[in-house]
Amino acid sequence: MTDLASYLPALRARIDSATNEAITQTCTLGVDHAEAKDFVVAAQRAVSSGKRFRAIGAHLGAAVATNTEPGSHPMVDHLASALELYQASALAHDDVIDHAQTRRGTPTPHIQFSRLHSENGWLGSSPEFGQASAILLGDLLFSAAEDAIRRCAFTLPSTCGEKLFAGFTRMHTEVAVGQYLDIRAEQTPLDPHDDSSINGEIVEQVVYLKSARYSVIHPVLLGATLEGASCELLDTLEKILRPWGMAFQYRDDVLGVFGDPEVTGKPAGDDLIEGKRTMLLAFTWAQATTEERALITSMMNAPTDKRHEYVDAVREIISTRGYDSHETLISGLVVEGNTHLAQVATQGLLSPASVKLLEDLGKMLTARTS
Amino acid sequence: MTDLASYLPALRARIDSATNEAITQTCTLGVDHAEAKDFVVAAQRAVSSGKRFRAIGAHLGAAVATNTEPGSHPMVDHLASALELYQASALAHDDVIDHAQTRRGTPTPHIQFSRLHSENGWLGSSPEFGQASAILLGDLLFSAAEDAIRRCAFTLPSTCGEKLFAGFTRMHTEVAVGQYLDIRAEQTPLDPHDDSSINGEIVEQVVYLKSARYSVIHPVLLGATLEGASCELLDTLEKILRPWGMAFQYRDDVLGVFGDPEVTGKPAGDDLIEGKRTMLLAFTWAQATTEERALITSMMNAPTDKRHEYVDAVREIISTRGYDSHETLISGLVVEGNTHLAQVATQGLLSPASVKLLEDLGKMLTARTS
Repeated sequence: MTDLASYLPALRARIDSATNEAITQTCTLGVDHAEAKDFVVAAQRAVSSGKRFRAIGAHLGAAVATNTEPGSHPMVDHLASALELYQASALAHDDVIDHAQTRRGTPTPHIQFSRLHSENGWLGSSPEFGQASAILLGDLLFSAAEDAIRRCAFTLPSTCGEKLFAGFTRMHTEVAVGQYLDIRAEQTPLDPHDDSSINGEIVEQVVYLKSARYSVIHPVLLGATLEGASCELLDTLEKILRPWGMAFQYRDDVLGVFGDPEVTGKPAGDDLIEGKRTMLLAFTWAQATTEERALITSMMNAPTDKRHEYVDAVREIISTRGYDSHETLISGLVVEGNTHLAQVATQGLLSPASVKLLEDLGKMLTARTS
Repeated sequence: MTDLASYLPALRARIDSATNEAITQTCTLGVDHAEAKDFVVAAQRAVSSGKRFRAIGAHLGAAVATNTEPGSHPMVDHLASALELYQASALAHDDVIDHAQTRRGTPTPHIQFSRLHSENGWLGSSPEFGQASAILLGDLLFSAAEDAIRRCAFTLPSTCGEKLFAGFTRMHTEVAVGQYLDIRAEQTPLDPHDDSSINGEIVEQVVYLKSARYSVIHPVLLGATLEGASCELLDTLEKILRPWGMAFQYRDDVLGVFGDPEVTGKPAGDDLIEGKRTMLLAFTWAQATTEERALITSMMNAPTDKRHEYVDAVREIISTRGYDSHETLISGLVVEGNTHLAQVATQGLLSPASVKLLEDLGKMLTARTS
């Protein structure tokens, strides 16, 4: 049986081309003015690359629902590009929110627009123009995503098409809520004498909405829905994918604290510097001494550009406090997903080839090191 | 025959209730956390009031397409709420872009969130939290709009449902592009020696996308599409509504310069202070002397809070230069729309009651003084 990795190069090429075609269609729609060219170029650039993680999930879901090979479902191209377009929309807005300067080595949209402004010597503030344009770019990419999902939803039998569309809308509704909960949690002051200052339940909810649901469950389920999967199959897939999706983010959070910058491409202790409220930090907080909590609080209260001074000491606290519980949580989640898959495999709901694809996905999600 | 105005109170009440129900449905969708309450409250507040202009257009379109009374089409409730939700989304983002502090006397979303932050003594910057939350609020309202339009699109025969959805997507695509063209035009430096420094074609395009299409044509055509209007009827309606929609914005631009603050609710010369590139200013620029252009340039180059010093002088220049041409343009557009309507009336494509409703809409759009 072919493993998932061997499908990826062809899937990625296919996703690239479908996404590029979708944004071109949106951009020709009433955007034939020379003055809109910067905007069109920025939209194309925003979707020109990426890991295509969610779109691959959609192809996988379609394959599993039909017991066929990934990449053999033409309608998934529209869904895949809708997922990539929406992801680019969310990133354009995130980068404004986080004041991020670069992403994967390329200037973020608001920085690109700010440069366009200053290079042309336009009136007013370049950063403000950059930010305004990036907000609108995110909106345009959102429109393009809706355009793409419509192209497949209305080719399906109407109940199925509506289910697909409702799932897509639910996905981005959850992302907006998850993002709000996330930025709100980061603003909550810490009190070293209060062992519940970092609310683990909220952290779990944010991970569920922004990672497990958005990056893993929704893409696979949407792909399966597109191919007419039964409610039984959708429920089964969700049971397998939820724990893996949670484990995926928790593993990522470990890398955000201890990861090698050479491998992750991010500065050492990046998540600590960003003040991210992770489950790793929630466990650490709950188990730390008041003195240790005071040190974590000092880091969180320091201006972002001063936080690197605390990274080594906070890492040390995390290693001795939250780390083990967090690893136990991850292992438990991996086992939970694997157990659900093993049950399905014996029930014959999925072909052996589909079980293998899901096994490979599980490994990709939970065993990654960068 | 009943005139349009007498339908408005009942239509508005109906739109209020449909929109409120739609946002409540979105907010219960995975938003059952106490910590998301601020976000939900902000979303509800963002759609709790408004002129309901676009939603009324949708009801009107449905009435005209079926030769029945406005407000007798249950499915239009979903479309109407989708239009209001999207409008609230666009306004939340606009208010961030324009740094607007209030709208209709109420603090704008980013100001509300900023206050929430400072009143709670949270970490970090209150304005940045306000801005980030308002961007996400706009995204949530966008999701809610998509949810609402789906609820009616999939009850229709599939070609009709797809046409409705495609029209809705096209509408917000055009708004994003129109907004970008608008903010970009405002940044372009002026050169008093260059009579084409204010590009009338771009101004016209912005007015077409942001006002004629978005506020008038799309809502009415979507309402008509929902009721299965023929392509012939849709084309006819567009021919009538385009000139009226353009005239509507051009009249608004006159009020933005000369309007009485007591009547418009905006500061005197508000559009001049905001540096808005209007057709009125484009005409004035083309006909002004180099000295007059230099004065307009000084105003545009001044910081926003110093521009009121130039308002009286620039108004005087506009009165003697662009004003008359601009009034001629508006009159011509009004006549153009009226002529198309008169032709339709004689052809019998519309009932006399529908013709009367459109006549009333034309008057509302083109004869308004506030």
